[in-house]
Amino acid sequence: MDKRELESILDKVAKGEMTAQDAAVKIKTEPYEDLGFAKIDYHRGVRQGAAEVIYGAGKTKEQVCSIVQSMLAHGEKSVLITRMSKDAYVYVSERLPLFYDELSKIGIAGEKRKYENPAGKIVIATGGTSDIPVAEEAALTAEFYGSNVLRLYDVGVSGIHRLFDRADDLATARVVVAVAGMEGALASVVGGMVDCPVIAVPTSVGYGANFGGVSALLSMLNSCASGVSVVNIDNGFGAGYLANMINRI
Amino acid sequence: MDKRELESILDKVAKGEMTAQDAAVKIKTEPYEDLGFAKIDYHRGVRQGAAEVIYGAGKTKEQVCSIVQSMLAHGEKSVLITRMSKDAYVYVSERLPLFYDELSKIGIAGEKRKYENPAGKIVIATGGTSDIPVAEEAALTAEFYGSNVLRLYDVGVSGIHRLFDRADDLATARVVVAVAGMEGALASVVGGMVDCPVIAVPTSVGYGANFGGVSALLSMLNSCASGVSVVNIDNGFGAGYLANMINRI
Amino acid sequence: MDKRELESILDKVAKGEMTAQDAAVKIKTEPYEDLGFAKIDYHRGVRQGAAEVIYGAGKTKEQVCSIVQSMLAHGEKSVLITRMSKDAYVYVSERLPLFYDELSKIGIAGEKRKYENPAGKIVIATGGTSDIPVAEEAALTAEFYGSNVLRLYDVGVSGIHRLFDRADDLATARVVVAVAGMEGALASVVGGMVDCPVIAVPTSVGYGANFGGVSALLSMLNSCASGVSVVNIDNGFGAGYLANMINRI
Amino acid sequence: MDKRELESILDKVAKGEMTAQDAAVKIKTEPYEDLGFAKIDYHRGVRQGAAEVIYGAGKTKEQVCSIVQSMLAHGEKSVLITRMSKDAYVYVSERLPLFYDELSKIGIAGEKRKYENPAGKIVIATGGTSDIPVAEEAALTAEFYGSNVLRLYDVGVSGIHRLFDRADDLATARVVVAVAGMEGALASVVGGMVDCPVIAVPTSVGYGANFGGVSALLSMLNSCASGVSVVNIDNGFGAGYLANMINRI
Amino acid sequence: MDKRELESILDKVAKGEMTAQDAAVKIKTEPYEDLGFAKIDYHRGVRQGAAEVIYGAGKTKEQVCSIVQSMLAHGEKSVLITRMSKDAYVYVSERLPLFYDELSKIGIAGEKRKYENPAGKIVIATGGTSDIPVAEEAALTAEFYGSNVLRLYDVGVSGIHRLFDRADDLATARVVVAVAGMEGALASVVGGMVDCPVIAVPTSVGYGANFGGVSALLSMLNSCASGVSVVNIDNGFGAGYLANMINRI
Amino acid sequence: MDKRELESILDKVAKGEMTAQDAAVKIKTEPYEDLGFAKIDYHRGVRQGAAEVIYGAGKTKEQVCSIVQSMLAHGEKSVLITRMSKDAYVYVSERLPLFYDELSKIGIAGEKRKYENPAGKIVIATGGTSDIPVAEEAALTAEFYGSNVLRLYDVGVSGIHRLFDRADDLATARVVVAVAGMEGALASVVGGMVDCPVIAVPTSVGYGANFGGVSALLSMLNSCASGVSVVNIDNGFGAGYLANMINRI
Amino acid sequence: MDKRELESILDKVAKGEMTAQDAAVKIKTEPYEDLGFAKIDYHRGVRQGAAEVIYGAGKTKEQVCSIVQSMLAHGEKSVLITRMSKDAYVYVSERLPLFYDELSKIGIAGEKRKYENPAGKIVIATGGTSDIPVAEEAALTAEFYGSNVLRLYDVGVSGIHRLFDRADDLATARVVVAVAGMEGALASVVGGMVDCPVIAVPTSVGYGANFGGVSALLSMLNSCASGVSVVNIDNGFGAGYLANMINRI
Amino acid sequence: MDKRELESILDKVAKGEMTAQDAAVKIKTEPYEDLGFAKIDYHRGVRQGAAEVIYGAGKTKEQVCSIVQSMLAHGEKSVLITRMSKDAYVYVSERLPLFYDELSKIGIAGEKRKYENPAGKIVIATGGTSDIPVAEEAALTAEFYGSNVLRLYDVGVSGIHRLFDRADDLATARVVVAVAGMEGALASVVGGMVDCPVIAVPTSVGYGANFGGVSALLSMLNSCASGVSVVNIDNGFGAGYLANMINRI
Repeated sequence: MDKRELESILDKVAKGEMTAQDAAVKIKTEPYEDLGFAKIDYHRGVRQGAAEVIYGAGKTKEQVCSIVQSMLAHGEKSVLITRMSKDAYVYVSERLPLFYDELSKIGIAGEKRKYENPAGKIVIATGGTSDIPVAEEAALTAEFYGSNVLRLYDVGVSGIHRLFDRADDLATARVVVAVAGMEGALASVVGGMVDCPVIAVPTSVGYGANFGGVSALLSMLNSCASGVSVVNIDNGFGAGYLANMINRI
Repeated sequence: MDKRELESILDKVAKGEMTAQDAAVKIKTEPYEDLGFAKIDYHRGVRQGAAEVIYGAGKTKEQVCSIVQSMLAHGEKSVLITRMSKDAYVYVSERLPLFYDELSKIGIAGEKRKYENPAGKIVIATGGTSDIPVAEEAALTAEFYGSNVLRLYDVGVSGIHRLFDRADDLATARVVVAVAGMEGALASVVGGMVDCPVIAVPTSVGYGANFGGVSALLSMLNSCASGVSVVNIDNGFGAGYLANMINRI
Repeated sequence: MDKRELESILDKVAKGEMTAQDAAVKIKTEPYEDLGFAKIDYHRGVRQGAAEVIYGAGKTKEQVCSIVQSMLAHGEKSVLITRMSKDAYVYVSERLPLFYDELSKIGIAGEKRKYENPAGKIVIATGGTSDIPVAEEAALTAEFYGSNVLRLYDVGVSGIHRLFDRADDLATARVVVAVAGMEGALASVVGGMVDCPVIAVPTSVGYGANFGGVSALLSMLNSCASGVSVVNIDNGFGAGYLANMINRI
Repeated sequence: MDKRELESILDKVAKGEMTAQDAAVKIKTEPYEDLGFAKIDYHRGVRQGAAEVIYGAGKTKEQVCSIVQSMLAHGEKSVLITRMSKDAYVYVSERLPLFYDELSKIGIAGEKRKYENPAGKIVIATGGTSDIPVAEEAALTAEFYGSNVLRLYDVGVSGIHRLFDRADDLATARVVVAVAGMEGALASVVGGMVDCPVIAVPTSVGYGANFGGVSALLSMLNSCASGVSVVNIDNGFGAGYLANMINRI
Repeated sequence: MDKRELESILDKVAKGEMTAQDAAVKIKTEPYEDLGFAKIDYHRGVRQGAAEVIYGAGKTKEQVCSIVQSMLAHGEKSVLITRMSKDAYVYVSERLPLFYDELSKIGIAGEKRKYENPAGKIVIATGGTSDIPVAEEAALTAEFYGSNVLRLYDVGVSGIHRLFDRADDLATARVVVAVAGMEGALASVVGGMVDCPVIAVPTSVGYGANFGGVSALLSMLNSCASGVSVVNIDNGFGAGYLANMINRI
Repeated sequence: MDKRELESILDKVAKGEMTAQDAAVKIKTEPYEDLGFAKIDYHRGVRQGAAEVIYGAGKTKEQVCSIVQSMLAHGEKSVLITRMSKDAYVYVSERLPLFYDELSKIGIAGEKRKYENPAGKIVIATGGTSDIPVAEEAALTAEFYGSNVLRLYDVGVSGIHRLFDRADDLATARVVVAVAGMEGALASVVGGMVDCPVIAVPTSVGYGANFGGVSALLSMLNSCASGVSVVNIDNGFGAGYLANMINRI
Repeated sequence: MDKRELESILDKVAKGEMTAQDAAVKIKTEPYEDLGFAKIDYHRGVRQGAAEVIYGAGKTKEQVCSIVQSMLAHGEKSVLITRMSKDAYVYVSERLPLFYDELSKIGIAGEKRKYENPAGKIVIATGGTSDIPVAEEAALTAEFYGSNVLRLYDVGVSGIHRLFDRADDLATARVVVAVAGMEGALASVVGGMVDCPVIAVPTSVGYGANFGGVSALLSMLNSCASGVSVVNIDNGFGAGYLANMINRI
Repeated sequence: MDKRELESILDKVAKGEMTAQDAAVKIKTEPYEDLGFAKIDYHRGVRQGAAEVIYGAGKTKEQVCSIVQSMLAHGEKSVLITRMSKDAYVYVSERLPLFYDELSKIGIAGEKRKYENPAGKIVIATGGTSDIPVAEEAALTAEFYGSNVLRLYDVGVSGIHRLFDRADDLATARVVVAVAGMEGALASVVGGMVDCPVIAVPTSVGYGANFGGVSALLSMLNSCASGVSVVNIDNGFGAGYLANMINRI
């Protein structure tokens, strides 16, 4: 139901063509479908400008598949699935067209989207090679929604010339996503090199006193560089989604 | 020193008009001035598109004043001072033109900037009245850099109709800054209502198990809404700076 | 042993019909039975108005079975088992009549209780689909003790219209149980919509900086809404038990 | 605006006596008043069955006074102020009739409420004498809303006979509020003695590894007794408000 | 080497019968044997009045066996092994006489010690049945060193009459070991009932906000009862060892 | 009321000389006196073998004084006051005979106790000079109850010869109290040198990552030496009380 | 590319023999090779005086092997691999000459380095036997880079004579690495015995309130001995690398 | 007492010229003096190659003065006092020659040491101006013991060119001390630029989620650069002392 439909319903109430009770029922029941275990939110496409995404963790392969099918049946051309287990991938791919990236555990069901002119440029940088799965979750998400993505992997601050060699790439980005575990210093260094928003993604990469990503998280929250904000540990999707949102403003 | 100057120096080296040594010295010494206790970074204006800002906490009134004076002497028209103590305000205002907002502890030295056409619209919302000082730090910062700001204060989720009454204002924002202490739920609720970036600012407002803002911080990092990122506890400046950056893309 | 029996014993002492020593022995030994590894508390049924419940986690299937049998032998009609492993379910169900719900790991041994007029209405709401196992633990517990339960699942704050569509259901509840992980904002939003007690149950659903449910827990403890109290992370039983207690006042 | 008024407005829309636009404006603007720094929520009285309460901490004496005056002007007979500083007390009491309790920092402006038949019985127990200020905040809040309160102070578990001497008082309570710092064991012990809801209030009383109340908080959240729920550290108001809510069901 | 031998060596030095260098070598090399991966401390028997104990966790079955053999070869009659895996038990018991308790994972190699007149009385109490493995570690340790132990299991504070029924047993103890998880209140309640030392052992029993035993640990450290001290989470051995030490003073 | 009196009451009930009701009233009301803000526990002297102690922190000077006076009036010869402020000291000493130690903030009201043959020997050792106030709280407490105390101050492990020089003193102790902040290693080192119980007291001495004593607390809880148990941070009283209890067994 | 090569390139630019653009390209592309998933840093050998090391955790056996091969192909004689899984060991050793130590999970590919005159003396001490794997990681690392290492294992503070017996070895060390879990006191005691740098390595050895090594970490950070610094929990490589660096100054 | 004296005493025992008892007494009593509240450690000068230092925090001005006087009387030429309050400075300077630096709170009593050829070069770098007090504590300590120190202040990573401009200074250092608060990234960046040991000092500079320096501490412990070790938060003295120790190897 888009905004126009809603206004038309309200008009009918004002004109006496529909009772308030009926209008309420219509408005309430239309926008999402109740699968029993999940309410699929068809509103969001309109409200947030982006189709529903399925968070695959903690859902059975059957649940993932049935949500995807319901969404495709309601007119979505493609559906993004994050943290999709290999099991779910096998199960769904036997029933539906499905792209799957094992590293990031991203699945895309339905037609793969194509954008003739993808927007701007998002640079996604990682401190090390172990941060790549999270970075790819961000990259594939941003590409799914129509952004250009440039990957700069393994450019961490302990060999900082690797980062500086790519200063030009950073300088022309509209948004940078900085993905790093351990001490998470990448976000601050990048933040000091660019004049665009930097989205910092702490990862759980490391051991000992990194406490599952807390060291990088705190480091990034306390960044002395301006223009840096932070998402949850390992939340590549959130970073990619937000980066695309900013990139397409 | 702007980019053009830099290229001209490098050209001279290539043409043999300047030795590499001299060029290095020139590049190194130009961009910032060493006051002994602080290196003022005249580069940043160019590099990050925004003038230097002084973080006033932990600096004496004399230090604040002398940094401001040096910056104005180098051509800045106005300087933003955050967390400026009342003492520093009194001291500086006796020596320089200074705007000061007691609530947010923001000072602006030099000419107050005027923008003929301030950019877009940033909505800054708070959960309660005690969050206002942090929100004002964000608001004055964003305005300083040329953004329109709409303030929606005291619209926390325990009386959620106050927030929904302003749904239109939210819907037309380019960026929203959500400032909240206690349980910090405002960010998630706002995040679910809009399709633009939401910058969440946890505040230290509350008591007991809020642990100086940690409860709101964790809540915001774990937001189930997409498009939300987080800055440090009470970091109104960071949020306002980033909001302006996004708003002006 | 009910209160009347106790008074009768004390009377006998006063009348000299029983020595103090014998009375003490009788009072001490009667109320519970010692199985060696567990003291079954037959007192509690009277004292707390609810039969003994078995916490299944960390008990072997044989222990669970033998405690249930002892309780049924002492006159309990039915026994509630929480966090019952599938193993224990198989083992016990081969020996006793047993209802088992795999999602919530709730088992009910003996006759299933039936209430002609279940009391009031408890609404149990969850933020997402992953919170449902905890919610079902609460729902089945409350129903076991004789309460009506209305389930509102997947109504989290990032798509808040899903919650508002059910405002009428909330408005007529005598108690609401709000079950949510991640940022746990559901409790505050619900707390602002109703004028009855809200029992908040943080869940360990989420990842990264949710720290196994701590983010939701802190969020709920710091709720800015009045009438909200909190139980332990994932403690669906505790919430359902308390909700029934309030519902039946 | 009470529910009846609201329905009458909606009726007018249905009958064409009022445009939807005008109705929206009326509904939106009526329910609260914007003082600039605070939106007073006149809705809540109806919605939650309890008048607005002012959280005094972090508000200036002038702000407190002006909010109180606005509320009294809108028809409230009396207003509860929590965490009211002595300063605010002096300032407000010079301008308005005001009851003030120094220990709990509770103020009641306007007429003191009188209830002909206060409801049920709430028992408020503390572990030690240092917990009394928090307990009094709970007690005065519950009395303000019309509940009978019985105080059992200094009955902590290290001298547990003091608690057992009052077993009768506990047995006849409809709700118990257990207020304790240090190890917070009072809640569990009381929880095992009664069959009514127990609201546990951890206090910041103690030192060292109590971490400002965290030890008592964790202890209470992990209570092995059924029927116990927890509010924030030192949150006497929350406990008293909820206790009254349950007591008056 | 006992104290007498040591004095005799020192005497020889004073009398010129042995050079200082030789004496040093003798003293240094005698007291323990170096197995390469472990220095067995034969000194401790004398110094601390108790034979060496092997902490089995993190050692291979071969390492455990070879340490035990070396100790028996040096004259120990029996050796206590804590946290002994079932694997190690099987392996060692094929090579040596070995008593093994599966619940507590305690092994005793060599002759089982017998004491004609075991000392005093240690009461070991647990809050629930899940705390029993830790309690048995304490009990078997104390018995190994010659103490009488009385077990009071499953007497937690949520059904406090179970504890009070055993007040006489508590009153005649020389030391009490209170073993409890969850809220750990048992230590405080027991501490208030007796006038002998109480050793509190927090256990990791529980879930959610118990944080692997931290809730019980903090509770016990903050006990309002006098005479209570605390050992590490799940450290049954430490408690049993110390209880015996006090019991035998 | 001592044990004999209690038995006499129960006898009377058995003989019909007193009704159960009257007996209950007598038992309940006798043992402590209710000052309104504190229930003084006259039972404890008998039950725990030690007179009541007043925890002075958080009590006004008037409260402290009135509790002391009530206790002396009930027959206590002397009363121990811990964490007594200088203010309270001045106030009480004008009204009562009072010994006061400024360093440890220990006050002793009434006659100073004298013991003809103080028991055994408690060694109280500190890591540094800043730990002395806590150590003195322990020492004066133990002396108050009749123990001999030997003070070994400033013998921390960074200059470990200072400790070893006193090995003889340690070897003849019946109990050792090890008081240390920072890394708290003293407890482990001492624990390895003696064969008597070691009570470890972490102090809040230090800065940075000591987190108000947490570093020493964790260090002591994880001590690799046997026979070590721990009390709360800065809890000198608790250590001294327990040390005396063990010393006098 | 070594420093001389770099200067030669810059010379060419100054002399007009190479354009700035070409020079930039050359400098950028030379120093490391991009394997797609990892940028191997050939610079570091020169810059830090030590060849590249591969952190094996979180890399597949194929990735480890291909990085090693690339490094050997670029002229490294030998490559150090830390945290190498047994799987990776088997896989790589089938393709390349490889030394592997199972305990420490250290692998050395290529020729084993031999030093005619290894530098100075590093003493590596552990508190217990369970700390040995971390210590061996440090020892093998330091030896790989050319240092002499003396191992003193199982010399923890609970039997401190074992440490003092080796005082001479400690006294002649140029650097000491102190490896300990549990309470981590070893670092402080060693720190007080020597006048050379002490590198403290907390290990995750222990249980309960050691929190995966946090107790030892805090203990070491708060060491009262001078000359002590700390690396991450279980970071044997870091300690060995740094020890060698200091040893070879 | 130096090593030679000690050997001479031991010789006398071997030759029968002195009894063991007398020797023990002599050795024990000589090396330090007992001021009652502090044992001054005259041994350490020999043992650790550096004179005693006084940690001024938590000591009264009289205590500081009397310790200094005792040390000077025993032959120290100069004494270093850290964290010396202004009060203590005034008090001591009236009685003794004293150098005092207000920023770092370092005092040096007695003759100021002069070194004809100070050793090597220590670079001390800070992230911001607020870190300077801690850096100066390190610098003055290192200079006191005879090291050359080069200060590079305010070269934090958000404007990283300031750091790179000083690459030559870093490249020639024998040790670098990196002092930073907030995200503490300076240590990693510096660690990647140099091939000498880097001592990282986290500072408590910052706010919100820096938790008094924890963010920088964790960041530094998790540094991805090799050769970095860490001291306690704000521990400038420890870093300076260790830097000098390494510098003078």
